[in-house]
Amino acid sequence: VTRDEALALLADVAAGRVDAATALDRLAFAPPSDLGFATLDLDRVVRHGYPEVVFGSGKTAAQVVAIAEALWEAHGRCLVTRADAEVRAALQARFPEAAVEPLGRTVQVGTALPARGGPPLAIVTAGTADLPVADEAAATARFLGLPRVRVTDVGVAGVHRVLAARATLASAGAVIVVAGMDGALPSVIGGLVACPVIAVPTSVGYGAAFAGLAPLLTMLNSCAAGVVVTNIDNGFGAAVAAARALR
Amino acid sequence: VTRDEALALLADVAAGRVDAATALDRLAFAPPSDLGFATLDLDRVVRHGYPEVVFGSGKTAAQVVAIAEALWEAHGRCLVTRADAEVRAALQARFPEAAVEPLGRTVQVGTALPARGGPPLAIVTAGTADLPVADEAAATARFLGLPRVRVTDVGVAGVHRVLAARATLASAGAVIVVAGMDGALPSVIGGLVACPVIAVPTSVGYGAAFAGLAPLLTMLNSCAAGVVVTNIDNGFGAAVAAARALR
Amino acid sequence: VTRDEALALLADVAAGRVDAATALDRLAFAPPSDLGFATLDLDRVVRHGYPEVVFGSGKTAAQVVAIAEALWEAHGRCLVTRADAEVRAALQARFPEAAVEPLGRTVQVGTALPARGGPPLAIVTAGTADLPVADEAAATARFLGLPRVRVTDVGVAGVHRVLAARATLASAGAVIVVAGMDGALPSVIGGLVACPVIAVPTSVGYGAAFAGLAPLLTMLNSCAAGVVVTNIDNGFGAAVAAARALR
Amino acid sequence: VTRDEALALLADVAAGRVDAATALDRLAFAPPSDLGFATLDLDRVVRHGYPEVVFGSGKTAAQVVAIAEALWEAHGRCLVTRADAEVRAALQARFPEAAVEPLGRTVQVGTALPARGGPPLAIVTAGTADLPVADEAAATARFLGLPRVRVTDVGVAGVHRVLAARATLASAGAVIVVAGMDGALPSVIGGLVACPVIAVPTSVGYGAAFAGLAPLLTMLNSCAAGVVVTNIDNGFGAAVAAARALR
Amino acid sequence: VTRDEALALLADVAAGRVDAATALDRLAFAPPSDLGFATLDLDRVVRHGYPEVVFGSGKTAAQVVAIAEALWEAHGRCLVTRADAEVRAALQARFPEAAVEPLGRTVQVGTALPARGGPPLAIVTAGTADLPVADEAAATARFLGLPRVRVTDVGVAGVHRVLAARATLASAGAVIVVAGMDGALPSVIGGLVACPVIAVPTSVGYGAAFAGLAPLLTMLNSCAAGVVVTNIDNGFGAAVAAARALR
Amino acid sequence: VTRDEALALLADVAAGRVDAATALDRLAFAPPSDLGFATLDLDRVVRHGYPEVVFGSGKTAAQVVAIAEALWEAHGRCLVTRADAEVRAALQARFPEAAVEPLGRTVQVGTALPARGGPPLAIVTAGTADLPVADEAAATARFLGLPRVRVTDVGVAGVHRVLAARATLASAGAVIVVAGMDGALPSVIGGLVACPVIAVPTSVGYGAAFAGLAPLLTMLNSCAAGVVVTNIDNGFGAAVAAARALR
Amino acid sequence: VTRDEALALLADVAAGRVDAATALDRLAFAPPSDLGFATLDLDRVVRHGYPEVVFGSGKTAAQVVAIAEALWEAHGRCLVTRADAEVRAALQARFPEAAVEPLGRTVQVGTALPARGGPPLAIVTAGTADLPVADEAAATARFLGLPRVRVTDVGVAGVHRVLAARATLASAGAVIVVAGMDGALPSVIGGLVACPVIAVPTSVGYGAAFAGLAPLLTMLNSCAAGVVVTNIDNGFGAAVAAARALR
Amino acid sequence: VTRDEALALLADVAAGRVDAATALDRLAFAPPSDLGFATLDLDRVVRHGYPEVVFGSGKTAAQVVAIAEALWEAHGRCLVTRADAEVRAALQARFPEAAVEPLGRTVQVGTALPARGGPPLAIVTAGTADLPVADEAAATARFLGLPRVRVTDVGVAGVHRVLAARATLASAGAVIVVAGMDGALPSVIGGLVACPVIAVPTSVGYGAAFAGLAPLLTMLNSCAAGVVVTNIDNGFGAAVAAARALR
Repeated sequence: VTRDEALALLADVAAGRVDAATALDRLAFAPPSDLGFATLDLDRVVRHGYPEVVFGSGKTAAQVVAIAEALWEAHGRCLVTRADAEVRAALQARFPEAAVEPLGRTVQVGTALPARGGPPLAIVTAGTADLPVADEAAATARFLGLPRVRVTDVGVAGVHRVLAARATLASAGAVIVVAGMDGALPSVIGGLVACPVIAVPTSVGYGAAFAGLAPLLTMLNSCAAGVVVTNIDNGFGAAVAAARALR
Repeated sequence: VTRDEALALLADVAAGRVDAATALDRLAFAPPSDLGFATLDLDRVVRHGYPEVVFGSGKTAAQVVAIAEALWEAHGRCLVTRADAEVRAALQARFPEAAVEPLGRTVQVGTALPARGGPPLAIVTAGTADLPVADEAAATARFLGLPRVRVTDVGVAGVHRVLAARATLASAGAVIVVAGMDGALPSVIGGLVACPVIAVPTSVGYGAAFAGLAPLLTMLNSCAAGVVVTNIDNGFGAAVAAARALR
Repeated sequence: VTRDEALALLADVAAGRVDAATALDRLAFAPPSDLGFATLDLDRVVRHGYPEVVFGSGKTAAQVVAIAEALWEAHGRCLVTRADAEVRAALQARFPEAAVEPLGRTVQVGTALPARGGPPLAIVTAGTADLPVADEAAATARFLGLPRVRVTDVGVAGVHRVLAARATLASAGAVIVVAGMDGALPSVIGGLVACPVIAVPTSVGYGAAFAGLAPLLTMLNSCAAGVVVTNIDNGFGAAVAAARALR
Repeated sequence: VTRDEALALLADVAAGRVDAATALDRLAFAPPSDLGFATLDLDRVVRHGYPEVVFGSGKTAAQVVAIAEALWEAHGRCLVTRADAEVRAALQARFPEAAVEPLGRTVQVGTALPARGGPPLAIVTAGTADLPVADEAAATARFLGLPRVRVTDVGVAGVHRVLAARATLASAGAVIVVAGMDGALPSVIGGLVACPVIAVPTSVGYGAAFAGLAPLLTMLNSCAAGVVVTNIDNGFGAAVAAARALR
Repeated sequence: VTRDEALALLADVAAGRVDAATALDRLAFAPPSDLGFATLDLDRVVRHGYPEVVFGSGKTAAQVVAIAEALWEAHGRCLVTRADAEVRAALQARFPEAAVEPLGRTVQVGTALPARGGPPLAIVTAGTADLPVADEAAATARFLGLPRVRVTDVGVAGVHRVLAARATLASAGAVIVVAGMDGALPSVIGGLVACPVIAVPTSVGYGAAFAGLAPLLTMLNSCAAGVVVTNIDNGFGAAVAAARALR
Repeated sequence: VTRDEALALLADVAAGRVDAATALDRLAFAPPSDLGFATLDLDRVVRHGYPEVVFGSGKTAAQVVAIAEALWEAHGRCLVTRADAEVRAALQARFPEAAVEPLGRTVQVGTALPARGGPPLAIVTAGTADLPVADEAAATARFLGLPRVRVTDVGVAGVHRVLAARATLASAGAVIVVAGMDGALPSVIGGLVACPVIAVPTSVGYGAAFAGLAPLLTMLNSCAAGVVVTNIDNGFGAAVAAARALR
Repeated sequence: VTRDEALALLADVAAGRVDAATALDRLAFAPPSDLGFATLDLDRVVRHGYPEVVFGSGKTAAQVVAIAEALWEAHGRCLVTRADAEVRAALQARFPEAAVEPLGRTVQVGTALPARGGPPLAIVTAGTADLPVADEAAATARFLGLPRVRVTDVGVAGVHRVLAARATLASAGAVIVVAGMDGALPSVIGGLVACPVIAVPTSVGYGAAFAGLAPLLTMLNSCAAGVVVTNIDNGFGAAVAAARALR
Repeated sequence: VTRDEALALLADVAAGRVDAATALDRLAFAPPSDLGFATLDLDRVVRHGYPEVVFGSGKTAAQVVAIAEALWEAHGRCLVTRADAEVRAALQARFPEAAVEPLGRTVQVGTALPARGGPPLAIVTAGTADLPVADEAAATARFLGLPRVRVTDVGVAGVHRVLAARATLASAGAVIVVAGMDGALPSVIGGLVACPVIAVPTSVGYGAAFAGLAPLLTMLNSCAAGVVVTNIDNGFGAAVAAARALR
């Protein structure tokens, strides 16, 4: 459904012409929209509270632009992740106002969702090389309207650096911990805070990191109870997980 | 700190003899309690809102009983997971009132934490063979005072079984999805609900499941945004993650 | 045997000079044809009903052109897969009429096999990034004369997208399901249809997809009975498997 | 739906009280049947042409018996695979007429589906140690009503053994090839026949077979086009795949 | 060389009949001693300062006893690791004075090497389940004459437990850190102390620990510089590495 | 063909009734012999110079005995490897004269092949725990008539032990090197001798040996040129490889 | 703390205004220094005796220069490892006096730490292709003030090359052994010397070296007791480990 | 030793001034020759019958040229493998007469070793993409003086292609089988011939070939007894192994 159709439907509900349950079903499970090479799930915003986000990797620039147009028309906003230089240029050409972030490789078209209140999401990195993934998480969180705070470069080899950030961490509503190499930081933070801790392994490190496998396993085996894990380098997924927890 | 010490400290705070910040620090980071073979983190309850849980695997029955005694004395309650038959018998002998669950291999000594209100935690399994892990999650959730609802045996090969449970899932505050084999169920549920989805891979399946590696990878690669993952067969960790999200 | 030799042999059969069994053996197991760097199995068409297809990867452009010429002379047609830009250009230069598809990296020289009747082969993708593999499958299916229908971008995170395609799937004679990331789509489709379901994992996804290992394992562990699997990104093999099933 | 309900529904269709499309939907996607610990997909027989089969591993004997009873009541037949000695004894005690096969670890309760006509399914093994998996495939095929032929112990180290079975293979409608160790047999057979070839790796072999990983990879990489693969030791899945192809 | 031969040789040196360099060579690289099923390296004590230690796993009890006798005769002492119950009983029967430790599975025959002075070796464990490996390290260190101190159960989920042991760690000459699950403890300790840190992964944990692979990778990727790693569960090797560093 | 049939055929050749080429083909590729559960390749002795050897693992004792009987009848001899206690007992009961070796798990029925001349095969082990695999190699070599010499427990941690055996190694016609743990011995020996060096990794060692994977990889990566490798624990295959080289 | 602040603090200690323990704590655990994208652990030099070293990989050239400036200001020296061509150029532009080593990819700004006395660190390579990693170790050791000696290209396939270096090895205080392919050299050297042996696997070799996995496993499984291991290609870590042992 | 020194030594032997055993030892274990970055094992030719071969990968062009010069001076010949375009150009510039083969990436300086008599080495490939590895094997075999015969593109999907080459294979003294993808060809050939069969896996294939892991495992698990295996893509090692067998 487009926004116009949705408005009309809601008007019908308001006027008693359609009951609420029927309207919700129609919105949440409407027939998907078919672009030929993509089937958009435009109603995800109703089911989840936020619209579909475009994973730019493996798509041509033309495909990404077309999908972004369709989402922008439907929702007035769109976020693209994993946008390489060519995709970023194509989106910028089509949407000159777009917010482009080269390090995190994200492009936001239109405005972010309205900012939520409540305690902020803390995004923590173990090392400088983890910043691109943290930036992807931060751009996604901003798009989703989450308040944010950053804590940078506090790897456990200097554990007093983590402890120095204890107050910031304690006041967060959820913590995303981004770490490569040994991936040990989420275990320490998981023991310090009571809120959700979402661990993101990165592909940073020497050979036996095996492109992120080592910190991934570390995090899955965290001795701090209730630490949960996303895919390697998946800052986007971590931010959405935080949004689910902070509803 | 024991409960008596904690009460005395809080009396001091009430009387203005100790200020609140000092008291909290003293409670949350008190010197750990040393049993010789174990160093108990008795103050975790202050930092996290729930006490340390005992992982029974790899410990002798005598060690588990001694740790359980120390925790029970400090908190009035204790949960043991991965309690094999010998450990369960030893705990039952020492604590005849303990709640013992053979399938999920848990033993609860003393009472659970006070029940929380709010929407329940849904614990969903893909197949009958995933029940022991779901039972561990349920016993942990009960210990932590979380309201619970179960959805059983709704694997995606009969996807209408999942859809039939849509109302239950939609009303949950968080969903734990336990699945072995292809581990596909969290992706479907992640697309249906907006709340936190915590995926637990199990070691159930034919050879190429590689003792849970296959569903673990499936879940880490979920195409539903924001699905997070725990260790293989780690129902306990999933329940704590849910408790973090449902605070 | 060349086509001329085959015609002469068949004339001998017709005239009673050679009996049928002898002729078949001569056709099906004739001495292979040696190009020096390749030994062509020109009689595969007799054993299998379709000629050898050229795997372009790891061969020089000159080698591919020479093999294509030999096959084209023998059969009047030839399909090359995994044709990179250099190979595509060399084939186009030699066969200006060839049908070149850059996305799927295939080149068809000469005509396709005669179109078969019967229910179509459905080629389904979970995401836009899976299209190149689906295109390889489609080009192979076309070459083999199979009727085809496409269903695009119906990943399980929006499971109603799959259900919306149920009629198309139900009328297919076989289904190829192409999916990366969690690879969950074949399990859902395998539960919806009774015909052969051939799952093709793709190398699309975040780090822990491990270049297709994750969806490969998912598909091998499908909880839908009788789903079978091909190599990663092997659209060609899936189409041939479908042709075997649809004979 | 039970058989009685299904009969009543079909009577309604016959009488014109219900139209066919409605009836099919009602049969194929009826609410699943809930046993508490299992949610049966009793209508799979309508969607697939055969009822759900019980995977015995990871379930208690009591659970298996209860599921078997429910399926037997609904369909008049039931097949259990991966039935260990305890499960086999429990089923035999409850269903004295059941057909129990210790080597393949299957139990069939009630009659098989009506025998289909057409060319048989060939079940081929590379070595004697592959027989239990082949027996599971054969028991499943019998339950599904498929005609069968066996070819035993024709590994490629004596390739003339395979060639000696060429006539049998050529007359088959589909071939299941069960092999451990190097898993090379499906590649040879895939080059000899035009029908579907379903490869089943087994966990038989020396250390570097890694419990079936080696033949699994061999089969996925088969140089014979269109060979498809199932999970390790999954004779059941191979038989269902054959049934899908031989409809 | 036996001790008697060694004494005679040293007498020759003392008397000027043999020069020192020649004597050393004769001692350090004397022909190995052949038991038929084992070739003892009796002169390792000259090259390394400590005698060969017997790895009990994979040897019959009779073989272990025979090797222990030969070493005991040559050196007056012998240590056996990985001694299972049968081996322990056989050694105890032959050497009633032997020091047998069931948890660490070690048996020491004869006296330990003379105690060294200097700062002690600290042996630290992350959890109670890591104790058997720490006990193997401690028994080896005692045999080698190293002063020892233990710190137990200070996993990073309660990082103040590690910090509470800071003084003990700071006064150590070397630290062995034994940890399973996430294996994060060596990174924290490596950042706190300047002496050698030897990390030992253990096979303790949930499924995705993959029998010690997870902490092994964590430790190899430690963000604390200069942390070194031994094999999984190899407390013996860690103690010898400490002895090398503390010479 | 049985021996009687072979003798008759050779008589025909001698008498000029059959020419040599025809006779060889008839012997080498005669129709395989079918036991129902096994298809014997009785003519392997003509193609290879030695008869089929029975891999006892994964077969029932009854199957092994039946196969041994058929081979013994055809050739007057038979070797069974991987014979567990039950299989060894069954073979001993049927063939009281059989040579049974419990450590190497082999049973030889009938006489060995005639002893060959020439330089011996050296079978070298790195440690005592490698002896069972070396014994399997030795039993196979004896069955095949190869002269043998053993060098035991000369692992590279005491490299002078290897050098002490240099004369033995230099006079060998081929060397089998059996090693677990680091698997380094073949590299040292490969640099010392000019004859074939066949490396056999064993599943002996600490956790990160991963059941033989570590020495397998070591051996495949040997810096000594021309070292070749067999499967883990495959002493039988190594002996046959030596027999191929020493023809 | 900057050097000026440290000097002032030490003056306070000298004057009795601050006691020693307080001063040390203030130096060793001072608040970390925040660059926005990096949190420098400037006091590591007090805890460890050497300053933080910059891992250049995954950082932008501008970030590396900024970090180097901060460290150089604090300590008067700085070492950067894994400096690719762009980073090396940027550092050289900012610090024209820097010591740049292209093969080992290191840049040293300012002077090295004062040279220590005592026996040297021996850095040994198995092959010429291991030199870059050995150069990284050597540059780090020089920065840390360690005396050094090199032994080059003494792989075990010519074991007399190692033995020829025996005197050099015997006089070393610690040995770093750098090896790819089979990684066997540390086992031989570990058996020859009594001092610490630090093994560094390299990513050099044919396919089954799997980018360093093979020598990594070899070294972890070394049959020479007490050999310890670092990450793949981690010459830096090995040098720091040596510095820890040689304090 | 240089050739001049060797000649002088042999003259001494001839004149009775040195006895033969002493001379051989001096030749075979002379002090290695040190180039600074490489330690040449010039006497390998005495121990093995052929000189050291240079592995070009991971060395600079200048290093390779310097090593080639030293070997050429000592032996009058030198072979370089894995010579990339830059190395090939540098060698050609220094040795204009060198035999350069771009596909196999080898460079031979000087003459080959004298041709040996006896049955030839057969070099067999499964597919055209395996040719570069086969060319490396062929160039090495030519350098070592081995007679050679080639059989090309006879993969098992058309098994009659292998059978058509049976006569060639039967007359060989050893067979090298080069295969990627399923790696099944050595098992078929191993069953056809009695001579040594050396299997070389190649990194050719679709994703689940995992850069040669799949055919490597296939070959290690060959059901044909006595097939031995080299590293992935290691044509050089296979040729040396053949030379060891054909001495």
